[in-house]
Amino acid sequence: MIIKIDLRSEIPIYTQLQNSIIEGIVSGDLKPAEPLPSVRAMASDLGVNMHTVNKAYNFLRQDGFIQIHRQKGVVINPEGMPEVTSEYLIKFKQEIRPIIAEALCRGMEQKDFNRFCEELFTNLQKKRG
Amino acid sequence: MIIKIDLRSEIPIYTQLQNSIIEGIVSGDLKPAEPLPSVRAMASDLGVNMHTVNKAYNFLRQDGFIQIHRQKGVVINPEGMPEVTSEYLIKFKQEIRPIIAEALCRGMEQKDFNRFCEELFTNLQKKRG
Repeated sequence: MIIKIDLRSEIPIYTQLQNSIIEGIVSGDLKPAEPLPSVRAMASDLGVNMHTVNKAYNFLRQDGFIQIHRQKGVVINPEGMPEVTSEYLIKFKQEIRPIIAEALCRGMEQKDFNRFCEELFTNLQKKRG
Repeated sequence: MIIKIDLRSEIPIYTQLQNSIIEGIVSGDLKPAEPLPSVRAMASDLGVNMHTVNKAYNFLRQDGFIQIHRQKGVVINPEGMPEVTSEYLIKFKQEIRPIIAEALCRGMEQKDFNRFCEELFTNLQKKRG
């Protein structure tokens, strides 16, 4: 799978890397138990610091998206994905709240908001079909 | 209006401040032409660096939410709010895309996603009514 990183973006690189891997899982590009490059290899591929990759991998491991083994290396969690927990829902609402606030401030209608989200739902799952 | 800042949050303080002011506008707490504290006063009130407040105010000014005058100081844009531009829509989709990706990865259903968003739409506008 191709990891896309925008070095000029305001979004931290470790966040972009996390997002890219999660999108890979959603699209079906990255399957359970599939190996990911080692921290060193990923850092070298992307031309970023090893610390950055480490940070992304650690967050993904904490949340249960990947496993990190001494021998087997880094793999997409073979036991399945984390679920919608109450802890996650708090984070989810914290993240989406300011986006909705700005949309409202700019006069976006809820039906348009829903349509844009539906497009993204479809788009992200497209390859899974 | 009360600005809520969480110093322990992973979200940068200038972003929290921006979000808080936008929420204030959406709720109707902050009305067009209403003055905001000066950079110095806001920094002192929140116990944060003036540079942090400056950064938040500058982003809000660039986007058209506030105006900054030498004499009148900082005010909520009296000429109205910025609109849903094509540039904004690109940012909007970039911001919401990883949130939807993670929700999908965790198996959230679209109807639940829509319900959570509807709650936030209602909640954010509550005081306006």
